[in-house]
Amino acid sequence: MAERRFSEDELIAQIFAPLAAEGGLGLADDAAVLPAGAELVVTTDAVIAGVHFFPDDPPALIARKALRVNLSDLAAKGAEPVGFLLTLALPADWTNAWLRDFAAGLAADARDFACPLYGGDTTATPGPLTVSITAFGRAARFVPRSGARPGDLVLVSGTIGDAALGLGAARGEPFAGKLGEAARTHLLGRYRLPQPRLALAAALRDHASAAMDVSDGLAGDLAKLLRASGASALVEIARVPLSQAAREAVALEPALLERALTGGDDYELLCCAPPSAAAPLEHAARASGVALTEIGVVAAGREPPAFIGRDGEQSRFEKPSFSHF
Amino acid sequence: MAERRFSEDELIAQIFAPLAAEGGLGLADDAAVLPAGAELVVTTDAVIAGVHFFPDDPPALIARKALRVNLSDLAAKGAEPVGFLLTLALPADWTNAWLRDFAAGLAADARDFACPLYGGDTTATPGPLTVSITAFGRAARFVPRSGARPGDLVLVSGTIGDAALGLGAARGEPFAGKLGEAARTHLLGRYRLPQPRLALAAALRDHASAAMDVSDGLAGDLAKLLRASGASALVEIARVPLSQAAREAVALEPALLERALTGGDDYELLCCAPPSAAAPLEHAARASGVALTEIGVVAAGREPPAFIGRDGEQSRFEKPSFSHF
Repeated sequence: MAERRFSEDELIAQIFAPLAAEGGLGLADDAAVLPAGAELVVTTDAVIAGVHFFPDDPPALIARKALRVNLSDLAAKGAEPVGFLLTLALPADWTNAWLRDFAAGLAADARDFACPLYGGDTTATPGPLTVSITAFGRAARFVPRSGARPGDLVLVSGTIGDAALGLGAARGEPFAGKLGEAARTHLLGRYRLPQPRLALAAALRDHASAAMDVSDGLAGDLAKLLRASGASALVEIARVPLSQAAREAVALEPALLERALTGGDDYELLCCAPPSAAAPLEHAARASGVALTEIGVVAAGREPPAFIGRDGEQSRFEKPSFSHF
Repeated sequence: MAERRFSEDELIAQIFAPLAAEGGLGLADDAAVLPAGAELVVTTDAVIAGVHFFPDDPPALIARKALRVNLSDLAAKGAEPVGFLLTLALPADWTNAWLRDFAAGLAADARDFACPLYGGDTTATPGPLTVSITAFGRAARFVPRSGARPGDLVLVSGTIGDAALGLGAARGEPFAGKLGEAARTHLLGRYRLPQPRLALAAALRDHASAAMDVSDGLAGDLAKLLRASGASALVEIARVPLSQAAREAVALEPALLERALTGGDDYELLCCAPPSAAAPLEHAARASGVALTEIGVVAAGREPPAFIGRDGEQSRFEKPSFSHF
């Protein structure tokens, strides 16, 4: 027998209220109260079925991805999470079970990242599932995109390109069939569930001259950061950190290297820092368990970054950035 | 000759950056910085084509409605606007001209309500146009839903039911054809463009025990406020303020009175206050130019509010609240 679907009030009280922050007033008011304090960092990002994830992805993963892409922005600005607001536009075929799983995923990440729910809005939509999240953070210092200076090192966290290759695997591209099982699983997982690098937020706040998260491809996002800073850069492709799985894919199909450097959804941190900060950043990275790899150097000029290959040739990317727009 | 459509970067730099607050960093970063200070009031509401407005509504009106429904929540909490974040999910057929008009409407209201843009997200959607806004406000005191006490007066701002009747007119219901031109225009305008009652925010902050905005119908929203307060209320239907246009509609079709009391989109303020606050509230209302009308009294008990007719009979509403969900 089919369970009656939640009313909007039931949905809020039973499904989302358990996630509420103290200032969220039990999600029973029109607005919420954020704690007083220093400047607040705010960011917002939406994910839409068929654009940012597959409609039949597990609901817990959709919820976690929606929150994590916002947490990744906070991390890049050197901020610690304070909380978030959730706007959920549900297509006609939602079920109670789907919502329970969605909320369970959200609750797990809200707890793990100390980022409780402050409120939101639920509505019907004749279109695809749309999850819009606004996240709040605190930072003693906001790390801008615009602070990179010639001579600064360029660094990235984790590994680059896994998610773009994972999307290819999810779409059943030929290379994926030739990958080992472990590699395919790794790449798919990296596409489906970003890892916001909050463990590095404090190090960025203390040492980075500029930072952003890599969400639309390393080449394009570095170009954006440099444009905001009024600078250029030299990057050595061989130093860009690739996972074992990505190396396996590139060995099968060398053209995939370009996709790794330009594809979206990495959610790694890209930052610049003066050479004097190299040692403390390396120390912080080791302490946090997240690698931070030096890939190049900021240069004077206004050109997009030059990516230098093993042969010394500069690679140019036809489409340096991924766009959902 | 068709103008080339904006790239995402152009759209942000040319269309939305002119609306940016100082802390919005020219919309050229991943996040924004809200000024330090007291507690921050946050609220979020989305509007979707085909659900909250007609897809062919003028873009400037859609933008203003999207912002104003959030400003209405701030007003109800006694808060002054600080700024907002905008998430815009655009269907495939958007044009530069549409976006320019949308931004012009948003800019006009952002200026008039002193509520600048702090950032946002633009994305494509295979579904309908979806505008999700998060608004920030400051209030020396947050006016909750939960503070109403037996003996408090129940008051509403402006007039009730115009928007629900305006929606009927927009849908071409028979009564609309019999209305005078001025009445029809008034009701349609009230549906299309909410008037956030920020002029009363300070008075609510100083005097109201509880408040919310009336967005889903007076009867249902009052029931929500009373539920949060653990109280009941007696309301005299004859005291509920109706516009001349709404009176004209109800005279044509008496059944429309129930729609006025239960239909959505009023965006008026509903508040409770001790009798000692009646005089200062009346004074504040007169000074602001927005009427504040006493319609009943809070009572002990847990029942939904009783709406008393001229005959002394209690009206019961089959569906006391409008829901987009």
